[in-house]
Amino acid sequence: MPLQFASRLDNVETSAIRELFKLLGKPGIISFAGGFPDSALFDVAGIQASVDAALKEEPGGALQYGATEGYEPLRTQIAAFMRGKGVTGLEPTNLITTTGSQQALDLLGKTMISPGDKVIVEGPTFLATIQCFRLYGADLVSAPIDAQGVQTDKLEALIREHRPKLVYLIPTFGNPSGATLTRERRLKVLELAKQYETLVVEDDPYGDLFFGEAPPPSIFALSREVPGSREWIAHCGSMSKVLSPGLRVGWMIAEPGLLAKATMCKQFSDACTSTFSQATAAQYLKSGRMPDTLHRVRQIYAERAQAMAHALRRELGDAIEFTEPKGGLFFWARLTGAGGKVSDAGEFAKRAIEKGVAFVPGAPFFAKDADASTLRLSFATVGTQKIEEGVQRLAQAL
Amino acid sequence: MPLQFASRLDNVETSAIRELFKLLGKPGIISFAGGFPDSALFDVAGIQASVDAALKEEPGGALQYGATEGYEPLRTQIAAFMRGKGVTGLEPTNLITTTGSQQALDLLGKTMISPGDKVIVEGPTFLATIQCFRLYGADLVSAPIDAQGVQTDKLEALIREHRPKLVYLIPTFGNPSGATLTRERRLKVLELAKQYETLVVEDDPYGDLFFGEAPPPSIFALSREVPGSREWIAHCGSMSKVLSPGLRVGWMIAEPGLLAKATMCKQFSDACTSTFSQATAAQYLKSGRMPDTLHRVRQIYAERAQAMAHALRRELGDAIEFTEPKGGLFFWARLTGAGGKVSDAGEFAKRAIEKGVAFVPGAPFFAKDADASTLRLSFATVGTQKIEEGVQRLAQAL
Repeated sequence: MPLQFASRLDNVETSAIRELFKLLGKPGIISFAGGFPDSALFDVAGIQASVDAALKEEPGGALQYGATEGYEPLRTQIAAFMRGKGVTGLEPTNLITTTGSQQALDLLGKTMISPGDKVIVEGPTFLATIQCFRLYGADLVSAPIDAQGVQTDKLEALIREHRPKLVYLIPTFGNPSGATLTRERRLKVLELAKQYETLVVEDDPYGDLFFGEAPPPSIFALSREVPGSREWIAHCGSMSKVLSPGLRVGWMIAEPGLLAKATMCKQFSDACTSTFSQATAAQYLKSGRMPDTLHRVRQIYAERAQAMAHALRRELGDAIEFTEPKGGLFFWARLTGAGGKVSDAGEFAKRAIEKGVAFVPGAPFFAKDADASTLRLSFATVGTQKIEEGVQRLAQAL
Repeated sequence: MPLQFASRLDNVETSAIRELFKLLGKPGIISFAGGFPDSALFDVAGIQASVDAALKEEPGGALQYGATEGYEPLRTQIAAFMRGKGVTGLEPTNLITTTGSQQALDLLGKTMISPGDKVIVEGPTFLATIQCFRLYGADLVSAPIDAQGVQTDKLEALIREHRPKLVYLIPTFGNPSGATLTRERRLKVLELAKQYETLVVEDDPYGDLFFGEAPPPSIFALSREVPGSREWIAHCGSMSKVLSPGLRVGWMIAEPGLLAKATMCKQFSDACTSTFSQATAAQYLKSGRMPDTLHRVRQIYAERAQAMAHALRRELGDAIEFTEPKGGLFFWARLTGAGGKVSDAGEFAKRAIEKGVAFVPGAPFFAKDADASTLRLSFATVGTQKIEEGVQRLAQAL
């Protein structure tokens, strides 16, 4: 008799994307499939200096177990970092550090979701959020988005209909949508959270990666303008896209009751996030290197995004529709089928791999009612010349 | 209306120990309460050299996302480390790395335990395992132990009665028991696992910390002697007690089906364990420093354990009973009430704090039928002179 696994595993399956990723080993492939930053842009020297400082100044702290809530010097630095982005009234005790922001999602699932609970997510949304929440038994409801992010009138109707346990949004340079919620809609979300007493989770790993003008302040930051709304917002942040995913340093800001329950769950999930990583990240933030690092990566990602936009328009023409993202790592596009060309992104992905270029079909990013004509293209890890070449291959595959 | 948390949180509460730990800030307190290694023994220079090598040789790998299964060079080193401890036929693909072995427990809970499932643990057992499994809805059954670890005849009866989803054991220098399962009983456990087709989880964070002779091989290593038993054993290991808990590097060995499901769950828990930590740990193991490090910490912990045993016998006499541990970090003791002295360890803990010494009462370590006269004393972080002084304070409190 084989092992009998827990029933919650029936709610998920290994992702289609995972299967696709196995094909990426093919030599010479140009990959727009990744969801990660470019390793070549990591500030290795700065991180080396930071870990040196941590091991010199606080070897006990950096190598011992730490408080489950997070390593104190890092919580202090993150609070300052968030205040620098317009968050008012934030103390280090208002946040916990997590093992990447993925763990914040896991802790939110564990803390909030009972089997059968409704949870509203954007359609499309981050794939790992769908699976993470389903493992806790969530019944996901998909709220439609447009180029300005989630459609708040439809979101309100869904909240009224489903009375969800929480609403999960990636409002800034969304994954996979690339879309950014307008300031007006952010304020509306805050009103909805307050009016319906619904927890809204703002996942914000990409907000610092803007190409031109800064995006609107985070929903959490804007909560200062809607009295009584802040307690209904949980904000997840991460060092992964701006400094290094390998540190696995993220954080969650939330009201004290939720933070206490999430901390208890974290105690039994991994005891604490690597203090070695946390102390290194704290030293990095303290060193004052972050503004230069952000400036540099923004510039490079902006060039790559622009190269991809130009190439897509030139090479694929009216066979593809997209809104050029103003930050983040992703283009979200739709095959129009114009000129009788392929409009199924899954089929297109297979043909593209044959031509030596990879991307991710959009369907798995929908919790419900998948749009099979959509696809996600990441420009983050590919130089501009290779982007041109990759898009030419896409045109051949089309 | 406050937030409505998930129903699974009703199964647990913030631990009594956590409350006790808040008192440890009192100046001048001597603490036998900890469950962690001594920071002063960390090989800071060796870890510095290891992180330097990682950032120099593999900066991309050490700072980027890694495979959810674990960073390949570390899996290779851990497999070699385990082979050095008598495990045969182990390949790097037979294990995944985890964010401390606490995460291995969490992944086992998520993967295996449906609400209401029976799980057998030792009475007493590791507190965080009790809470971790209860969060997944486990109905815990307590198997009695003696100085030779779990009583396998009683364990068999409980397996027959409850048909548990899994059996969780800390067979070597147990926490809190300090007890070590005999070789004969280990073989019996393997027979039981095979006969009843029951997953047995062997948690082994302390096995390397022996004071004299090495303990019997791990249950997993001994599975070579019981054909057909290995697939029923999951083995959890950790760098935390021997190198540094701050790295948060642990691992789980299990049969491929379970490992695949645990990996899927890990993907949505924290994506991967810090590659920064994993690459550092891999370099450390590769450097060949570990044998010397183990030799050194074994010696120091052995001296402290001996000092504690002598002091307890001398100062507390027949008011306390214990078996001197042969490794690990803990003494497990029982107040006898002899001479009309206090026999409730909770009451004793309060009086002890007043006298300036702390320990952990034993009751919370029992999933069921707590023995209120028991207590756990750790000698790991206290020098021999302070151990003498602390035990004298215990005598005063008694």
